[in-house]
Amino acid sequence: MAMDWMRQVKLSSSQEGNMAGTHKITMLGTGFIGMFYTMTLHGQRGRDRVHVVYSRREEKARDFAQKWGIPRWTTNVAEAINDPETDVIVIGLPNDQHREAVRIAAQAGKAVLCTKPLGRNSAEAKEMLDTVERAGVFHGYLEDLVYTPKTLKSLESVRQGAIGKILWARSRETHPGPHSAWFWDIEQAGGGAIIDMGCHCIEIIRSFIGKENRPIEVVCWADTLVHPVEAEDHGIGLIRFKSGAVGQFEVSWAFRGGMDVRDEVAGTEGTIWLNHFLRTGFEMFTAAGPRGYVAEKAEGETGWVFPVGDEVHELGYQHMFTDMFDALDSGTEPRETFYDGYVVNAIIDACYRSSKSKRWEPVELAVWREGAPAEGIRVPATMADEGHVLIKQERMADGRTKLILKERDSGRIVERFTE
Amino acid sequence: MAMDWMRQVKLSSSQEGNMAGTHKITMLGTGFIGMFYTMTLHGQRGRDRVHVVYSRREEKARDFAQKWGIPRWTTNVAEAINDPETDVIVIGLPNDQHREAVRIAAQAGKAVLCTKPLGRNSAEAKEMLDTVERAGVFHGYLEDLVYTPKTLKSLESVRQGAIGKILWARSRETHPGPHSAWFWDIEQAGGGAIIDMGCHCIEIIRSFIGKENRPIEVVCWADTLVHPVEAEDHGIGLIRFKSGAVGQFEVSWAFRGGMDVRDEVAGTEGTIWLNHFLRTGFEMFTAAGPRGYVAEKAEGETGWVFPVGDEVHELGYQHMFTDMFDALDSGTEPRETFYDGYVVNAIIDACYRSSKSKRWEPVELAVWREGAPAEGIRVPATMADEGHVLIKQERMADGRTKLILKERDSGRIVERFTE
Amino acid sequence: MAMDWMRQVKLSSSQEGNMAGTHKITMLGTGFIGMFYTMTLHGQRGRDRVHVVYSRREEKARDFAQKWGIPRWTTNVAEAINDPETDVIVIGLPNDQHREAVRIAAQAGKAVLCTKPLGRNSAEAKEMLDTVERAGVFHGYLEDLVYTPKTLKSLESVRQGAIGKILWARSRETHPGPHSAWFWDIEQAGGGAIIDMGCHCIEIIRSFIGKENRPIEVVCWADTLVHPVEAEDHGIGLIRFKSGAVGQFEVSWAFRGGMDVRDEVAGTEGTIWLNHFLRTGFEMFTAAGPRGYVAEKAEGETGWVFPVGDEVHELGYQHMFTDMFDALDSGTEPRETFYDGYVVNAIIDACYRSSKSKRWEPVELAVWREGAPAEGIRVPATMADEGHVLIKQERMADGRTKLILKERDSGRIVERFTE
Amino acid sequence: MAMDWMRQVKLSSSQEGNMAGTHKITMLGTGFIGMFYTMTLHGQRGRDRVHVVYSRREEKARDFAQKWGIPRWTTNVAEAINDPETDVIVIGLPNDQHREAVRIAAQAGKAVLCTKPLGRNSAEAKEMLDTVERAGVFHGYLEDLVYTPKTLKSLESVRQGAIGKILWARSRETHPGPHSAWFWDIEQAGGGAIIDMGCHCIEIIRSFIGKENRPIEVVCWADTLVHPVEAEDHGIGLIRFKSGAVGQFEVSWAFRGGMDVRDEVAGTEGTIWLNHFLRTGFEMFTAAGPRGYVAEKAEGETGWVFPVGDEVHELGYQHMFTDMFDALDSGTEPRETFYDGYVVNAIIDACYRSSKSKRWEPVELAVWREGAPAEGIRVPATMADEGHVLIKQERMADGRTKLILKERDSGRIVERFTE
Repeated sequence: MAMDWMRQVKLSSSQEGNMAGTHKITMLGTGFIGMFYTMTLHGQRGRDRVHVVYSRREEKARDFAQKWGIPRWTTNVAEAINDPETDVIVIGLPNDQHREAVRIAAQAGKAVLCTKPLGRNSAEAKEMLDTVERAGVFHGYLEDLVYTPKTLKSLESVRQGAIGKILWARSRETHPGPHSAWFWDIEQAGGGAIIDMGCHCIEIIRSFIGKENRPIEVVCWADTLVHPVEAEDHGIGLIRFKSGAVGQFEVSWAFRGGMDVRDEVAGTEGTIWLNHFLRTGFEMFTAAGPRGYVAEKAEGETGWVFPVGDEVHELGYQHMFTDMFDALDSGTEPRETFYDGYVVNAIIDACYRSSKSKRWEPVELAVWREGAPAEGIRVPATMADEGHVLIKQERMADGRTKLILKERDSGRIVERFTE
Repeated sequence: MAMDWMRQVKLSSSQEGNMAGTHKITMLGTGFIGMFYTMTLHGQRGRDRVHVVYSRREEKARDFAQKWGIPRWTTNVAEAINDPETDVIVIGLPNDQHREAVRIAAQAGKAVLCTKPLGRNSAEAKEMLDTVERAGVFHGYLEDLVYTPKTLKSLESVRQGAIGKILWARSRETHPGPHSAWFWDIEQAGGGAIIDMGCHCIEIIRSFIGKENRPIEVVCWADTLVHPVEAEDHGIGLIRFKSGAVGQFEVSWAFRGGMDVRDEVAGTEGTIWLNHFLRTGFEMFTAAGPRGYVAEKAEGETGWVFPVGDEVHELGYQHMFTDMFDALDSGTEPRETFYDGYVVNAIIDACYRSSKSKRWEPVELAVWREGAPAEGIRVPATMADEGHVLIKQERMADGRTKLILKERDSGRIVERFTE
Repeated sequence: MAMDWMRQVKLSSSQEGNMAGTHKITMLGTGFIGMFYTMTLHGQRGRDRVHVVYSRREEKARDFAQKWGIPRWTTNVAEAINDPETDVIVIGLPNDQHREAVRIAAQAGKAVLCTKPLGRNSAEAKEMLDTVERAGVFHGYLEDLVYTPKTLKSLESVRQGAIGKILWARSRETHPGPHSAWFWDIEQAGGGAIIDMGCHCIEIIRSFIGKENRPIEVVCWADTLVHPVEAEDHGIGLIRFKSGAVGQFEVSWAFRGGMDVRDEVAGTEGTIWLNHFLRTGFEMFTAAGPRGYVAEKAEGETGWVFPVGDEVHELGYQHMFTDMFDALDSGTEPRETFYDGYVVNAIIDACYRSSKSKRWEPVELAVWREGAPAEGIRVPATMADEGHVLIKQERMADGRTKLILKERDSGRIVERFTE
Repeated sequence: MAMDWMRQVKLSSSQEGNMAGTHKITMLGTGFIGMFYTMTLHGQRGRDRVHVVYSRREEKARDFAQKWGIPRWTTNVAEAINDPETDVIVIGLPNDQHREAVRIAAQAGKAVLCTKPLGRNSAEAKEMLDTVERAGVFHGYLEDLVYTPKTLKSLESVRQGAIGKILWARSRETHPGPHSAWFWDIEQAGGGAIIDMGCHCIEIIRSFIGKENRPIEVVCWADTLVHPVEAEDHGIGLIRFKSGAVGQFEVSWAFRGGMDVRDEVAGTEGTIWLNHFLRTGFEMFTAAGPRGYVAEKAEGETGWVFPVGDEVHELGYQHMFTDMFDALDSGTEPRETFYDGYVVNAIIDACYRSSKSKRWEPVELAVWREGAPAEGIRVPATMADEGHVLIKQERMADGRTKLILKERDSGRIVERFTE
């Protein structure tokens, strides 16, 4: 049992000597996500601070600024972005307002970090990508779930080969529905549960299956089963990648029991199961009624409940902002850029097309940047002897080994026992 | 906390005064499944006994008979079936031999219980169904996973409305591949992982979503990612039912870590999660090396292992045979008949078609017997007031209630707060 | 991954050719335990049947007989026991009635199976043991939790050395309190939570630590924290065995959240964790209100609930009666005899003494039958070289091996690194 | 389902506007704990930095400084402490060196934060407490496990009454033994597994049962079962508090399977179960061999492994230092002070006495500071009517309610049913 802390340290490279910079931030949006972002930035003795906050509504802007000790607030987006003291813009606005905020921020020459999804569709996302790249500003895609400590450690294990070649990744996010009205409005949001949560799942899947592994085609079911809205409240999609691997996402706005956020990854040499919310080693039975906050989108306040210790940490917000600001300070790219946001939108577009055409649809990517095509999954067949291909080998209870073989010429499948 | 044992008793109706009959059984097949069936029938002070066993190979027939205290053995199928003392035929043979065994058994006028899948395809299954019905013999489809104690209790809860209307059911069975050569031979088996394990998943899904709920169409991905065989070693399928509910099956012959057998069911009022194998409350760490049997298809013999207490019980064999013989004794139908086996085969046929056509394919059922069409899932919209449909309602931290509403005329989505 | 079914078969030796006998049973008691016993005996196509049932109250006896299809009922204990057709007496009566029932059964020369605890104290237990041994009748101690499928498989693993020498075993049973009045009456029951549930825990501990391993002394805390009764509603005890191993039991009649039945075993080579009730792979969230029976002593009917699939199976009743009747048929001893019941009572007596004396108390056993004393746990020290004893060895991240050593002469503890 | 974020905010009060100060730190010790502390302080964009590091060995001091970007290193303790630029001393040295370091730090008038246990015994701890109090310097006791996010949220729930009055708390920490030689040396460490890990458990127990709840007496078993050392490698202790509540700790240096860190708390209205290491929602099966660090004291590198996402976070280091520095900045007391360390040592002293005397031993506290005595657990008996005390009430399956009652005069226990 080696304590192997040196490898751990490399996992946490951001933890070495990084006092380079401190940043003043413009926060756009005071909703749930703006609050989570600010909690993360101000928490745990951090050195970066929100300096200006924008909300469309004066009351919300002022209250938010007061609650979080933010020096300035405004109801004017451009004024917030162009504040002379801030160098980083964090966009936590409804989906239909991302494009304009990105445009102003790029014009201001400031670093811009945008919440998920990047756009309502890939055309919007591509436009934003082009905007920041033309302006030459730092851009980060705030996909927090790729940054959960469990996911980061899993990805490192996958990179090291711990589970072999990836065959399949399932990512699931379901809960009883979002809190703000705009999510339910297909015009503002660009879709329903798939655009809202499928974007998380897809980027988790890409991270495990490999970002260099081009998504080829998708098939998707989307339906509105429970709510009186136009947008889908359920969606399931399969994504086939160039290597042959398959990603599977499941989203729902009608799940009962809390917020279900789980990933499963199967490789030729292993398996990873992650549970980010409902079963994380914290279990409480309470007969005593309402007693404070359990966890985001928890259902019920008595009986067995499953809280999460520190949500902003478990959901990846902390490691996400550390990566973003460290990348900014060191002049490198963060793990998630607008290009990633664009690829996610392109996959979602194909999903919506498939849910209507009822067939597999190609993922259309005007730009594919990730270098070499991934090698395929299938390994060359192992020959048991000149005439037989090995299918499976297993040790029997009586000590013998059983081989399941295919005769090379006839294709016939036979068993053979060896001592 | 009511102890409510009377309801429990009704759940176990078979447990009341059922000494009606005892049966002598012809067991066809001495492989893994014949062994599991015999262990179940002879175990726990049961009153029904295997009286004749058939295997194609003399040595296996003789050894099996001796091991399990079975009076007679033979290498002749017809002789086994026509044994004058047995009244029940249990078919535990490779898939391509089911049809002939059913034919002889029906001719003999004996009760016939056939292992899963019923046929290699729905044409074969339909022929077997017609054969037993024309002969008027008792027929049971040995789909054990519908009978696990957890599944039975879950189904009873669903029937009682505990989780509302069913929206989605996921059933997953994956392991590192079957033990006998014939499974890998597409000709004998009729397919790969989907025909082998998808048949379990599909019947579990039908049981949860409702057997009266007609399967309409499927979309399916199947691929051979790891093994040098023609049959698929991976498959994922979506099944849309008349009510709008969706079933999802996942099968693999390349899973690492043991045998993963899990079901998840989502309803409008609740959720059910079942884990039949890898996390059942039995966890062992062992540094000591090979020490006996852990569980079917367990991987590894040191480190953390997750055995199952009593496999024939946990996998449903015991409750399955109790249902079969109790039904036979009482002149009723068992929970699973050849008709169910036929429906399963028809769904699998559509899956194989879809995996080639790359689109949703209709489930073709020459006969649909289950009465009234299921009512749809969508409930009539709730009006918040004359002009607004209610989308969502939630209590805020400050004690107010937030309503997310759709304006009936404009379709616009708005928020409103009430004290 | 060997399927190793032959070993599995040996684990289930009772499953081979055991049609020897069938039995007619006198059931004494119609309470919760009588009901569970009868459900088990009549369930799953069993061949043994309850033929006469006794209850003190005519109405209960008659209703019970009718519900379970039992031909005869009576309110006279002696008449029930002496029924000419029954050969086995099952005692499911309050603790203070065991002795008299055993006396009459022994006189009748019938096999006698007594529920737990055997006596209210070791004097009573010893008297019952002497009674059945003098009469030469078959006797079994109905300690079901030693027979749960998980426990049986664990014990087999321990026997095979999978977790090395046993150092510690924790057994815990807690719930919100028993259902019948007599449990709460110290006179009828002989104690509180310790006599009620500690007897289970102690026999589970003995089974893991080894029945040949003599219990030497105990220390015990008992208190009445919540209920207005004389008997303790909480108890924790430590039992030191001859080998040095320690058992730990925890019982409570005030646990909230359901019935918590868990065992943990630590050995020099491994660990076993068993959860028999609250986390067995069956999880349900229900918002829909009261919908049938969840599990024995479950709390709450909405929210997350954790049912058990088939309680009589999971609690060991089925394997217990199979062992009892198979032993009776084959003329051998069952796993649990009255002698075991006596040892358990002797340990409990010492616990009650300790809870008053506030010190470790010896376990007083008039008879100790289990053969050879267990060998101690401590292994001879490993010498790293002539002058050093090895304390610990571990591989470092840099590839070197670190040894923690004790200098034989000085006793000084040092580190040394090897390549 | 209220999102109730305002309460969450109050839970994280440290997250509001706390840019008050930044600190330069002297780190004493470069072992495992010094590394973990430094990782925490330098991680996640923190604003406090280690400025000087001390190790007895030049090579270690220099390497550590280089690895973590620390400007200065020294092999002289006094020089490290008296560095003119640092204002906070963090002691991460072997137990026998705490006292001297505290003395020098107090003399220097600097804030001093000392790792656990405070002293090797309560006399040493008292001396350190007196030293810092006389010098009037800020002092914090670095008991990280009280600060895990799960523990902090649990404690808040307990404070709010979610599980009622606390009856029992179990805290367990076991693993295969510490990494450094000095832990195994009773002279340097002051004891074995109890002083090493029992100190964690005891403070967790105190936190749940209430720091105002005076520990009265203990009983403890300690033994050296596996290793050739003088210090105990196993210990179990029971601590009785003034309210009647009982704490239970379990420690072992011979646990197999990884690091087992779990807490269980039982209250009159609920239950809390925390698992900090082996089952936190991160599960991996790997057949591929050694591939990087799994988690502290993980065993085995193939098979099922259970990593922890971000160890310094999950183990509480991050929230601990946030509390310490926030308290320092705001002129308040941190959650854990030297007084807490002293109480823990006093309880451990009593445990060691008890393990020798084999009886309950009083906890000797020269100073007891926590104000009002805790109220007892027992509630006044509820009268069912004039003559009966209510013991238990439960709803029956047939809709009636069953009361278990004690007759006030006779003490007889009876059942009564009401419609």
